[in-house]
This record gives sequence, structure tokens and C-alpha cells, in this order.
Amino acid sequence: MSDVDLLTVGEALVSLRSPGPLATGGTLTMHLAGAECNVAIGLARLGHRAAWAGRVSADELGEFVLRQLRAEGVGADGAHRDPDRPAGLMFLERRTADVTRVRYNRAGSAGSALNVDDLRGPLAAGARVLHLTGITPALSESAREAVTWAAREASAAGTFVSLDVNYRARLWSRAAARATLTPLAGYASVVVASADELDLVAEPGADETTAAADLLRRGVRTVLVKLGADGARAYTRDGVTEAAAVPVTAVDTVGAGDAFTAGYLSGHLDRLDLVDRLRRAVALGAFAVAAHGDWEGLPRRDELSLIAGSAAGTTLR
Amino acid sequence: MSDVDLLTVGEALVSLRSPGPLATGGTLTMHLAGAECNVAIGLARLGHRAAWAGRVSADELGEFVLRQLRAEGVGADGAHRDPDRPAGLMFLERRTADVTRVRYNRAGSAGSALNVDDLRGPLAAGARVLHLTGITPALSESAREAVTWAAREASAAGTFVSLDVNYRARLWSRAAARATLTPLAGYASVVVASADELDLVAEPGADETTAAADLLRRGVRTVLVKLGADGARAYTRDGVTEAAAVPVTAVDTVGAGDAFTAGYLSGHLDRLDLVDRLRRAVALGAFAVAAHGDWEGLPRRDELSLIAGSAAGTTLR
Amino acid sequence: MSDVDLLTVGEALVSLRSPGPLATGGTLTMHLAGAECNVAIGLARLGHRAAWAGRVSADELGEFVLRQLRAEGVGADGAHRDPDRPAGLMFLERRTADVTRVRYNRAGSAGSALNVDDLRGPLAAGARVLHLTGITPALSESAREAVTWAAREASAAGTFVSLDVNYRARLWSRAAARATLTPLAGYASVVVASADELDLVAEPGADETTAAADLLRRGVRTVLVKLGADGARAYTRDGVTEAAAVPVTAVDTVGAGDAFTAGYLSGHLDRLDLVDRLRRAVALGAFAVAAHGDWEGLPRRDELSLIAGSAAGTTLR
Amino acid sequence: MSDVDLLTVGEALVSLRSPGPLATGGTLTMHLAGAECNVAIGLARLGHRAAWAGRVSADELGEFVLRQLRAEGVGADGAHRDPDRPAGLMFLERRTADVTRVRYNRAGSAGSALNVDDLRGPLAAGARVLHLTGITPALSESAREAVTWAAREASAAGTFVSLDVNYRARLWSRAAARATLTPLAGYASVVVASADELDLVAEPGADETTAAADLLRRGVRTVLVKLGADGARAYTRDGVTEAAAVPVTAVDTVGAGDAFTAGYLSGHLDRLDLVDRLRRAVALGAFAVAAHGDWEGLPRRDELSLIAGSAAGTTLR
Amino acid sequence: MSDVDLLTVGEALVSLRSPGPLATGGTLTMHLAGAECNVAIGLARLGHRAAWAGRVSADELGEFVLRQLRAEGVGADGAHRDPDRPAGLMFLERRTADVTRVRYNRAGSAGSALNVDDLRGPLAAGARVLHLTGITPALSESAREAVTWAAREASAAGTFVSLDVNYRARLWSRAAARATLTPLAGYASVVVASADELDLVAEPGADETTAAADLLRRGVRTVLVKLGADGARAYTRDGVTEAAAVPVTAVDTVGAGDAFTAGYLSGHLDRLDLVDRLRRAVALGAFAVAAHGDWEGLPRRDELSLIAGSAAGTTLR
Amino acid sequence: MSDVDLLTVGEALVSLRSPGPLATGGTLTMHLAGAECNVAIGLARLGHRAAWAGRVSADELGEFVLRQLRAEGVGADGAHRDPDRPAGLMFLERRTADVTRVRYNRAGSAGSALNVDDLRGPLAAGARVLHLTGITPALSESAREAVTWAAREASAAGTFVSLDVNYRARLWSRAAARATLTPLAGYASVVVASADELDLVAEPGADETTAAADLLRRGVRTVLVKLGADGARAYTRDGVTEAAAVPVTAVDTVGAGDAFTAGYLSGHLDRLDLVDRLRRAVALGAFAVAAHGDWEGLPRRDELSLIAGSAAGTTLR
Repeated sequence: MSDVDLLTVGEALVSLRSPGPLATGGTLTMHLAGAECNVAIGLARLGHRAAWAGRVSADELGEFVLRQLRAEGVGADGAHRDPDRPAGLMFLERRTADVTRVRYNRAGSAGSALNVDDLRGPLAAGARVLHLTGITPALSESAREAVTWAAREASAAGTFVSLDVNYRARLWSRAAARATLTPLAGYASVVVASADELDLVAEPGADETTAAADLLRRGVRTVLVKLGADGARAYTRDGVTEAAAVPVTAVDTVGAGDAFTAGYLSGHLDRLDLVDRLRRAVALGAFAVAAHGDWEGLPRRDELSLIAGSAAGTTLR
Repeated sequence: MSDVDLLTVGEALVSLRSPGPLATGGTLTMHLAGAECNVAIGLARLGHRAAWAGRVSADELGEFVLRQLRAEGVGADGAHRDPDRPAGLMFLERRTADVTRVRYNRAGSAGSALNVDDLRGPLAAGARVLHLTGITPALSESAREAVTWAAREASAAGTFVSLDVNYRARLWSRAAARATLTPLAGYASVVVASADELDLVAEPGADETTAAADLLRRGVRTVLVKLGADGARAYTRDGVTEAAAVPVTAVDTVGAGDAFTAGYLSGHLDRLDLVDRLRRAVALGAFAVAAHGDWEGLPRRDELSLIAGSAAGTTLR
Repeated sequence: MSDVDLLTVGEALVSLRSPGPLATGGTLTMHLAGAECNVAIGLARLGHRAAWAGRVSADELGEFVLRQLRAEGVGADGAHRDPDRPAGLMFLERRTADVTRVRYNRAGSAGSALNVDDLRGPLAAGARVLHLTGITPALSESAREAVTWAAREASAAGTFVSLDVNYRARLWSRAAARATLTPLAGYASVVVASADELDLVAEPGADETTAAADLLRRGVRTVLVKLGADGARAYTRDGVTEAAAVPVTAVDTVGAGDAFTAGYLSGHLDRLDLVDRLRRAVALGAFAVAAHGDWEGLPRRDELSLIAGSAAGTTLR
Repeated sequence: MSDVDLLTVGEALVSLRSPGPLATGGTLTMHLAGAECNVAIGLARLGHRAAWAGRVSADELGEFVLRQLRAEGVGADGAHRDPDRPAGLMFLERRTADVTRVRYNRAGSAGSALNVDDLRGPLAAGARVLHLTGITPALSESAREAVTWAAREASAAGTFVSLDVNYRARLWSRAAARATLTPLAGYASVVVASADELDLVAEPGADETTAAADLLRRGVRTVLVKLGADGARAYTRDGVTEAAAVPVTAVDTVGAGDAFTAGYLSGHLDRLDLVDRLRRAVALGAFAVAAHGDWEGLPRRDELSLIAGSAAGTTLR
Repeated sequence: MSDVDLLTVGEALVSLRSPGPLATGGTLTMHLAGAECNVAIGLARLGHRAAWAGRVSADELGEFVLRQLRAEGVGADGAHRDPDRPAGLMFLERRTADVTRVRYNRAGSAGSALNVDDLRGPLAAGARVLHLTGITPALSESAREAVTWAAREASAAGTFVSLDVNYRARLWSRAAARATLTPLAGYASVVVASADELDLVAEPGADETTAAADLLRRGVRTVLVKLGADGARAYTRDGVTEAAAVPVTAVDTVGAGDAFTAGYLSGHLDRLDLVDRLRRAVALGAFAVAAHGDWEGLPRRDELSLIAGSAAGTTLR
Repeated sequence: MSDVDLLTVGEALVSLRSPGPLATGGTLTMHLAGAECNVAIGLARLGHRAAWAGRVSADELGEFVLRQLRAEGVGADGAHRDPDRPAGLMFLERRTADVTRVRYNRAGSAGSALNVDDLRGPLAAGARVLHLTGITPALSESAREAVTWAAREASAAGTFVSLDVNYRARLWSRAAARATLTPLAGYASVVVASADELDLVAEPGADETTAAADLLRRGVRTVLVKLGADGARAYTRDGVTEAAAVPVTAVDTVGAGDAFTAGYLSGHLDRLDLVDRLRRAVALGAFAVAAHGDWEGLPRRDELSLIAGSAAGTTLR
């Protein structure tokens, strides 16, 4: 019996956002960030019991991270305070209206020191879904081991495992990513990827259809391809299902993929059928891009209908 | 002989605006709000003598309201300070780029305690136009009586009465609104409504043409239908006249309807013909949506030409 | 057996802070406020399990309140969402460098509708300490009943009851306060008051010594008199104990009394002797006045030593 | 018969305030400034009918100036819009915690082009008090003539004339100031000066007593010497009267002298005796220094008692 | 032999930017501005040695100007501090989403007092390119002489002279501009203009082709016509070459023309062929309009590729 | 012959300042920081030619650092861009009005990778003074070597070497610091320390007099002891000289020691005698504590007199 609906594991970052070019300085705002945190928050806002496990620094920035997780109702009992390592940071700079640049300051961070022991407790506590991303194994050798161990254990225990490929070119090469993520995908029930990430969990150079087929053959039940403004595509043994994106005014695309995944997993937890799971996925993606912040705009359950059919400039009163 | 060009009556609110979701907190900016104030400011900026009457709290928020009215040149001698009731508040939250949510904190407010006695003085002072909205009668029984009394008195005295339906679903039901507003419209020379509000001042379920005809039959001289980005339509005994919207980049649609009404009434005071009244109406609407704030972007008379034909990105120097 | 160390009951407000005069408008910052919340946060920051019970509005402001309580680790399962009433508000204005003005917008608020049924669950869950203030019974008839009921039940069950007099002149008269608070004090183990509040829980006009003696006679074990910059005085059957204030640069005295109470109750929960309980009380008061915000500056347990002996301008690196 | 209680004449500036050194850039806030405006606002806040006359630029900065005057209830019908000259500016920089630097950008400004014709209308409308400062005549030849003309006319008409010496070293030399201000003082009923300004309206090098005696001999009824934190001294034919300053936490001394003068003139208009006039003068000075801004902290009549006896950290609720 | 790649001459302004209407006040941000500074910064960011010469006020605003130039790596040894004149100011107001208004406060400014002597040193130091604009000669008689002298001297010395017409209607009439700029263009190797400015350096009323032919006949080697969102057109003796604009989300068009010119001159210094010079020109223009500020968004050399092909919402990590 | 007056070597940090507790999040402002940068800026503002050498990250934060150094006129040609390591960060949190906490995020930073080769060029270029601190050798083994090498080389070449002990407990132990700094002090002509740092460059446990005598015996010409609000004491072979602090309102003590050192070295470069060197040192310290920021408040040469004798609340106009 599981205590939580979803457990996720990774690095919680402090994101420092600059509304303009960093080089000319100015004012930064502090935000909790991290793909796995985004997913956990997305689920918690919809009323699911979500938990996050990982390492945070034993200083004020670590306190900030925990304070934000608690505020969003994400269980953080599995957070380990690391007395020796600093917080992982992410500088997010709106370089132009169209180009956002992210730089990490996370080498040697508390979060990157994640290891198998950190995850024993949280995993033992049980969860209906274990969500992993391709970012965490790129952080360090021990983090790679920890994620692989967790996927294997959960899979063996029959837990539904979700993997978002989330390739980060600044952290590792495509070849290195493929070497780790391809076996990892074998433990997953659902694999989420953008179109150009699919071959990182399949044969190098495989096209979308081939890669999806390959994953399904290896036991993945659903392969989700995120297509941004074009919506999403799902591959299952029953065929291909598509969902259009919800048309909104896009102001900040960061976090949209995580929102999509959270929506899909929420649908899974609510036992929706595939079409409705995809609908919720693209709905959450729409909330994410129509609001500033990685997760700040995600909906509570009573807000899910807000965005559907709202023309630009809708005022509710 | 009248002292002012336009007298309007209603509740002046303190609007607290949040640039993002309220639930995550942050910074709010204080603004004067209220449909009737917006109209009065729109006229004052164009050089008309506009006055507002109503109740404001006898505290700092009431001072703020009066200070803003004075700043905009709106006569506020008819404002009654209520020592016992708090200021009416409005929380305006930009929930996503496309969806703005408004919550009121106005039950039991000073403004909602408006009564007939509050209006005797201002009405006696005279005005060329009396402007009313369907919001005020929804605030309380005494406010309903006050507005009805004012409309009746003004109409009897031959004053031009303007009514903007302005239905607010959070304040009353459509049925309750219809019961009050339909007779009220009978006193009006001009009735302004959005397409879905028209049947609140006519037969339930009446379509636009029928409702307009109905109003004209009851003595209304002009029925204005606000169509947002599609402009506006005016029904008179001479037929139907349309005006296209002025194309602008829309950044904040709140207050656009009030701006439209102000533009129309300004044209009326300037004795423009219908086509030009409508042109001024849509021009003011364009200013409102192309600027942040409910009324902050409205033009002075020398600015009326600014917006016509300006491409996005025009720099005047 | 109790689940939490401290349960407190009251109204959680949204405080809107203006750094200067409200009448000239500007920018407000949103904060969680309320004397009982301040105490709960003070204890939670020190590692105690604290919980709060009361009513919050079922809108974004209510979400904000709950989000802040969760962020600070205060249990809020006992919060009841009220679908019909708005959030209680508090406008805090720094009128001059020396004078802060607070106005409430809480009549008819969700929090003021607190009733006995709201408290049955939280009280049944058990707590080592029940903390009450003289603010809540001033909010409404049902709130008065609820607080009195809770004090009686807890007292009967042997729970340690704490009462902070916290007289609010804008909410009720001294006579009305006395009529309610004097019997309430009879259920308390500790009564906290400023010097000019003592006679609200004793004979009218009683001086400090008389009032304290009166309370001790009625079963109160400790009477704490807050003296601001002069520290505090505790009356017990063993006599009078004094504690000097910790000298700090005062920038915001709001919340200092609640911090003092939180420090005292923390000492009680840690089974410190009276002198050390008082020391912790004045230490927390010092943190409160040396930082902006009602509770934002309160210390975690590892920070308790920060303030002792720090000269102005201490930099820790 | 006069329409207003006080008429004042001068330049209304747009003050751009920097919270830190200007050279490193950053954010400036816009404020209405100008010694005469400060006095008019001080009186209007206390309920007197105050009016200002002068020239403002016919652009958005001029609109800003008029908007602020109107907001504060200062009559500005006597403002002349100058289509050819820019707004006068003042850069106010908090260079260190103790040193504020002011730079003017007012040469050739609209305000500096003040001339006799601009003042004919306002003066003809009548006023109980005409308030002038030593700043305006330093702005231009025509402004000097205008001020001198106004003083003479008003004096001849029996209007109470008030003159604040207000020497500005960046505008003219002490010798030039003396040549203009000494005769001007001859028209005044009250002359206000700081100790080091007194000899600008008397014999060069005259000490305070001598200068005051000299002024009294020339017909001035009251000579007020502002002593900052030491209060003030008034010389009349009946002798010397002193008033201590009201002790407050000083955060911004700019505008304190104007507040003092406004308090004195308010007392004069209310027909208070000298001691009470001085008390109101030092009270207004205290409000000014205990709040940020040149005039933003000035009290309404119901706030006059706020500051008396308030200890630092007083919270009113 | 030249010390710098580009020397430019003009007025460096302090730009005070308001995000909304100026008349309602608020917060302004300080920026360095001036067409010539923008060009120099554009080149310096790309790694060229750029220098600026002109007059700046001998106060904190002058310090600000120099500090910004130094920060951007623009040589400012040729800046003359003027002890007697204030800084030139520019108020930039975002009046609506589509309309930006600029007002100057530069009459009598330090920058406008530029004279021939100020330029002797900088010109003697040598430069590969001398860049001039049609703004500087509009500032004063001495500035007109200085610019004309510099163009003649540089041309005679074989220096490549660049002229951007940059007509400013608030500074002079078209006729006055033509009288000065037409002969000035005769010294230029490249003339930059928008389509409606071309006849200010050619026959009045000449169409684009005629005007360009006229300039080429008079010795200008390249005539660049800026077409905004339509890109640009270059006329040389070899014919006409066009370049499309780089499609970006436009948020601030101010400074786009200067960025275009900087890109072109950078290509010239890098000895690119015409097509590539135009490509760099439109690329820099795209950076300028896709970022807030006149020059803040301009690219360093390693950023030139950022904007090509970036879809809206690109995140680089 | 030397190109610059002062060369300093160290790590330039990006300081992220929080006006309140970091754990509750909010807004951070970006600043250049680092003890050596502060000293270089202090000298550059006074008109000396100052240069800084070290490593900065090859990203936007590195650009920020160089942009700030250039803006302040500090030569940064000796800055080496490190493509592999991130910027060193410093989080500065105003925890209470009296307590500021600094946390570093600089392990493995670009700046900490400083090595001997980085310094060969800058040192070869020559300088009248080489300034070092005890922070740099604590950053890494290679940085320790680099600083020691530079001190030895400069000393051997007859360059005046300055050493500020600047002990940072978060970087190394007192014992480790002593082992490195004591020999380093042997190369210095002037050693600056606070009272509790003196024994890190002398015998463990030595009192101030003994430690100073020891240093003088080893060839140090001047030992400066910083006493904060108590001023400073200088030990030379001629005895002990004291200087009182300049009384100012202290708002930010961070950087005061560096300002003191800059003032002393400026006096040295200007060949002032000891008393006047100390006077300038305490004057610069006063500027630093009376303004926000580590170096932002430091004076230009024409501002040196600003602070002397200015009472709190001085307004210069």
C-alpha cells in the first residue's frame, strides 16, 4: 500500500531569473526549479499526493527550496540536508523576447550528490507512480546509480515508472545520455520525449516511428512525444493518438514539458482513458506557457476549465 | 442650468492588481476602479466637466479614492464619507496571459450603502447627462432604490440618461438583474450593453434585434451594442449603424467598455452625429485596451489622434 | 496522546502592507497575518509541531493563507474553507517613521464566522498546548462561543491553555472585552498581556500587581507582562521574575508580542525553567522587532544564538 | 472678499528621486516638488483653501504637476501652460545616509518664465494670505519682477504677505539674493528664515537679534527662525517666543521648512495665538521629517494629534 | 595609423524611461541614450574599438553617462566635461502598447554646446571610420559647425565617413535639416536613411531612386535605406541589393536604426561584402527590436548566431 | 616604470543581495564584490590608475563582472576568461537589522583557479603598489601559490606590497590561515588587519602590540589596525598613531575595511604623511558604512569633503 500517489527524485534548484540580459545586471527573482519538482507541484495542485526526494543544501537556499515545496503541498520528508555542499543554481535570462538562456551552477551541488541510500527510505514508503527524468543521471556518477537503482527497484515491485528524457546538452553528450537512458527506459511504463530526444532512448538515428516501436517492444506501454505548439502524439500497442495543443498566448515556455507530463500522470492516477490523459497533458502545458514561471501558473483542479475556450482578454468577474 | 456636463453615480472601488497569480502572493498595486468612475474620468480627460457621487469610507482608502478622482479632475463634492463602513475592494489577478480574474470584497462596503438621500444634492445641482450602470443597483436594496430614483427624477427633468447594463454575475442572478434593469432602461435615452447583456433590459431570451427594437419602442433613443474587437453597433429609429474597432495591440481589456461609453457620451456632449459618436467611442475603447489599467490609458483631447493609424512600434519624437 | 505540540485557533488575515501613506497609493505587499498564526509560525520555526485551526475564504486569498501556513510548516488540516465569505484583510500603513496604522477589513469575513463545530476536530486530535488570544472572541458571537468552548474543553482535558489578551480597540470596547476575557482567563495556565491590558482579565482598574495576584488566585500558573523595550515580568506563586529585552535595532515592532509568546511557549514545550523560558521569549521578541514583517524574521532553532551579543553591523562570513 | 485662504506663487518642479548615488544609475521616482507647492499642500491637507499660480510645461510633465496639485486639493486654475519651455526638474540623490544632494535642471524652464501678467488673474481673485519664497525671484528677471509686483500689490491691498527666505546657493549669490530679498521682506507680515539666512533680508552680517529687530522695525510683524531639531524662535514686538521641536525619527528632512511655514500659516488662518501657531508649525515640521518625500507625510487635520507623544514603534489598531 | 576603429560624435543623453503614461507618474529607469552612443556600443560589443566624443555635464548625470560608456567598452577620452551646462535628458514614455513618445529636455545642455575645438583631439587621434548623424547639427550652431568641420576634415584625410540622417522633427524643420544635411552627405562614404528621410539629403521631393542616384553621383559609395520590418535596401554604383529583416518578436523598436547602422559598419570594418554587411545590419536591428532598451539587447560577437532561426520561445540550456 | 598605480589580484564575485531573509525568497540585486575589487574601485574613484587581475567565468556573469570593473575605471586587461568554471557567487542576506549573513558559492569557481601564469603578465606590466588579501590564498592551492609568488616577485622588484589579512572563517581555519599568511606578511610594506586578525600574521596568541612589533621587526613598515567605529591605529618604527572614525549613520558595514585600505593606499600614492593617510582611510571607511553596497558609496576625489562635518540630514542644493 502506498502513502503517496507520485514520488519523484532529482535535484531541486534555486532559479534566479533575470527579466533582461544578465550582463548588464539588475534584479533577479528567486524561484524553486527542477523538472521533477515541477512535475510534483503539477500533481499536488491537482490534489494528488506528491512527494519529492533528493538532497538540498543545509543553508538558507536549502530552506528556501523546502519552504517552496511545502507551500505547494509536495511531501519533502525524503529530502536529505547536505551540510557540505552548496545549493544548485540556475540562472535564467530572457536574452531577447524570443530567446531564453539557462546557465547552471550545479557542479558539486548538494543535489548532484544524490545516492542510492538517499532513496531507500522514500522508495520503501511506496508510491503509485515513480517519476524520473534524464537530468538526474547526468548530474554525477552516484546520481546515475541512484536513479537506475530506483527505476529497477520500482519496476520490480510493479510500480508504474515514468521517464521524461529531458536531454540537457550542457550536462552531457548525446552519446553519454543514450548509454544511460536507453537501459533506463526499459524500466519505464511511460516514456516522455520531444521529437529530437527520442533516439536517446532507442537506436541512434532512429526516426520517431521506429524509436517508438522499439520502446513499445521493450515493454514501455506508452510513448509520449511532445510537439510544443503542435500538441502531442502518443504511441501504444493500439496505435497512435494525437492531441492538439490548447491555443493560448505564450509568455514563458520554460516548464511546459514538465506540466505536460504532470497532466498526463494526473490523468493516469485518475484512471482516465488515453485521449483524456492527453487532453489533461496539453491543458497543463497550456497553463504553463500562458503564465510566467516554471510552475507558478499551473492549475488547481477547480481551475482546469479556466483555459478551455478562453479568448485572449477574458475577464472573469 | 447645469453645473456639470456629466454626473455619474456608483461605487468607487480600490482595485488591488496582481501581475500574476494571487495565491503565490507578491506585490499589488492600488488603483481607483469602478465602471462609473472610469466613465467620469474618460470624460474629464476630454475636457468635459464630470462629477461623481457616491459613498466612500472615512479612512485612508477613502482618501485614496477621492485623491484619484480629484487628480483626474472629476468633481467629487457629492461624495459622502461613511464613518462606519470599509472601502469596497476589488482584487484583479492576471491568472494567465489570457485570463484575468476579478474578486470583489464589497459586501457591506461604504459604497454599497448608497441611498436616495446621498443623491439629492448632486442631482439638484444639475447635469447635462446622468450616467448609470447596472452594477450599482446590484449592491444593496438602498442602492437599487437610489439609482431608480435618480433615473426617474432625471428623466422627468429632461436630463439625458445613459445606462450601461454591465451585468456582474458575482453580484446577482440574470433574473434579478432583469427585474431591476428592464424598468430602469425605460428612463434612459441611451442604453449600452454587450450582446449577451441585451436581454437583461428586454424580454428574456430576446435576440439582439428584437431587444433593440423593444428598447427603442420604450423610448430609448439609441441602443449601443459593444462587440469588443468587432467594434460596435448602434440601433436608432433610423436604423442600424456600425463602427469597426480601431486595431491596436491589446494588453488589458478591463475598462474598455467604460471607455467606449465615455467616448460615446463625449460625442453626445460635443453634439457629434451618430457616426462620429461611435468613432469616438471605439477610439476610447482602443486606448483602454492598448494600455494597462482600467482608465490610466485614456486620452486627453489632444491625444485623440494618437492612436489612429499608428502601427505597432510607432515612436513619436 | 497528542499529535501536535501546539494548537492555536483564530483568524488568519491577509495583510497588505504599504511602506508609506496609503492615501497617496502605491505598492502593497501581501503577507499572512494574525496573532495566532504568528505564534504558530514562531513555534514551527523552532522545530515544534504547531497547528492552526480556523476559517479561510474559498478563493485565491484563502489559497494564499494556506500556502503560507504550509510553507512555514504549520499544520492547517483544521482549516475550514468558507465558500460564502471573503478573506479578512488588514491594511498596515507606515504613516511616519514612528507611527504604524492598522485598519481591518474583516467584518463578515470567513475567519470571523468561526464556530464551535469548526474546532471539534482539531481539538479532538489533541495538542500539548492550546493557545488563544483575545482577538478571536471579538470577531463575532459564534467566534466568542467557539473560543470559550475550546478553552473550557481543553482545560477540562488537562491541556495547557495559553491566553494572550491582545486587546484591539477597533474591534470592541474595554468593557465588552473584559466581560468575555476575564472568565476566559480562568481556563488558562498562562496569561500574557501588556501592562495596560492586565485589567481586562481582572478587576477593572486593578494595578499590575493586584491583577496578577488575582489571576494567580484564580488558577493561572504564570502571568506574563510584556514591557516592550523594557523586557518582561513574570508573576508566579513563587514571586516575580524579570527579563531584560535583548538590545537590537528596532525596525518593525508589529508581531513582537506574538513572538514573545511563541518564545515562552517554546520554552514551556522544551521544559525550560522560568528564567530560560523568559529568555527565549525576549529573544524571539528581539528577532521580531529587528526584522521587517510580523513573523518573517523569526529564528529557526539553529539561529537562536544569532542575535545574542551581535553588535549593530555584524557580518557573518 | 477672497476666494481662497492662501495663494502662493512659484515654480512647480518635477523631482526625480534616487534612493542611492545617481552616478551608478537605477530607478527614479517622480514627485511634485517646489517650496511653494509644499506650503500649499500643507495647508490644503489641513482643510484650508489653497491655490498655486505659476507656469507649467505644456507636456506630460506639466500634466503630472497639475495632476498632483489637483490630487492634493490645491487650486491650480492660475497655472499657465507654457507651450515653448520644458518642465523644471530637480534630481534628488541620497548620496549617503546623511547627505542628500539636489541638482536643478531648471534654467530656461516653463516655471522660470513666470511674469507679472501670469499673476494678475490669481491676485485679482483675492486671498487671505499671499505666500512667497526667495527661490522664485532667483529664477529669472521676469520672475523677480513678478514676485516683487505681487508682494507690493498684495501688501497695498492689505493682504497678509508671508515670505520664506529659502536661499538657494546654486541659483544666485548671497549678495544678489540680499539685493532682491531685503526690499521684498519689507512687504511681508511674516518672514521665515533659517538662522544663516536672516542676514539676507537685513544688514549683511547682522546677527539674529539685530536682523530680527531690523525687520520688525521695517513693519514685519513676526520673524520666524527655523532651528531644525532645536525647534523655532519667533520675534515680535512683544519679544521672543520659542518652541521646541517635536521629537521624531528623522528619515527625510527635505521639505521640513516648508511644512513648518505651512503649519504657521494654518495657525494664522485659524486665528491661533503665537504659541499655538508655533506649535502647529513644529508639528508639521515633525511630520515632514518623519516621512519620506517633500510633502507626502503631511497631516490632514484629523491626523495632527498622531505624532504628539508617539514613541517610536507605535502601532495604532 | 588609427587608434580606434570607429569614432563617433554627438550628444549622450540620459534617457528616463516610463513603462506607462508619464502624466500619472511612477517610476523611471535611467539609461544612456543617443543615436551615436548606440552605434558605438553596437560596435564595441562586437569587438571593434569604438570611441565617442562630445560634451557631458560635470555632475552626477555626466558621471552616469561616462560610467555607461566605459562599461560598454566605448572609449570616452574625448568626452569634455562642461561645468556650466546640465545633462541633456530624454523622457521616453510607453503611452500605449503601440505608441512610444519621446520628449527632449536638451536645449542648452552640455551636449548641445559641442564645438570644433572639442573634436580636434579625437579627430587627430585617428579612426578608420567617422560616424555622424543628422541629430547633432540640429542641436546648436556650434554643434552644426563642429560636425561639418569633422566631416570635411575626415573626408579630406581619407577617413571613411558614415552619416545617418536621423531626422528629428522636434529639433528642426525639414527645410533647415535639408540645408545642413545635404552638403554634409557630400562628405560621406555611406549614407543611412529611412525612406522618408532620403529627400533631406537630396533634392526636395525626390523619390527614393532619384535621391539615391543623386547621392551616388555626389560620391557617396553606398546609400542604405532602412525599411523596418521590411528589411533594407542598398544602392551602390553596381545596383540595388536588398536584405529581408530577421523575423523576431518586436518589443521595443527604439534604437533599431542605430543597431542597423552599427551592424553595417561592423561588416565594413570586417571587410565583408555588401550582402554580408547588410545581413549583419539587419541582424543587429533584430536584436534591438527583440529586447527592451535602446542598445541593451545588442549582441556580442559570440551571440550573433543566437537570433538566426530562433523560434519564439527558444530556451537554450 | 609602471603603467598603473595599483595592481590587485583576487577573485571578483557576483554578490546577490537580499534585503531580508533568503529563506522566504524574493528579489536579489546583482553587485560586483570581492575585497580586492573594492580596493581597486576605491582608488579608481579617487583618480588613481588601478588594475585588477584574476579569473572570471566565460559566461554572462563573467561579462557582468568585467562590465562593472570597466564602468568603475578599473583596468581589467589582466582578467583571464575561464571557459570551464562558473562564476564565484556570494549571497548576502540582511537577516536582521543588525546581522548580515554571507554565504559563498565559490568552490571550484573560475576565480579560485587563479595560478601563477595568470599573474605573470599583469605583474610584468608593473605597478607602484601591489595589493593582496588573505582571502585569495584560501581559495585553492594554485591561488595560494600565485599570491605568494606575486608577493615575492613584487617585493624583490622593490614594489610596495600591501596585505589585508581579511580572515574568512568559512574558507579555512585560523591555523591554516596563519601558516600561509605569516610568511606572506613578510613581503609586505603595509599590513592591514582587524584587532582579532593580527595574530594570524604573527605568533599565535600574540596581543596587538606584540604582533605589531613582530611585524615591524620582520620589515613591515606600517601595521594598520582597523577598529571600526573606534577608528584605526597605525604602528610604525616611530610609534603608534591613532585616528578617530568619522561619525556617520551606519547603514551597511560590508566593504568598510576595504574602503579603509583604499583610502590609506590613496594617501600613500599621493605621498601624504601618516596622519593624513589615516584620515583618508577613515574617511573612505565612513563613506562605505554610510551607503548601501560594498563599494557603491565610495567618493570621487571631489566628494572627499562631503562627509566631513555633515550632520545627519544635510541637504546640499
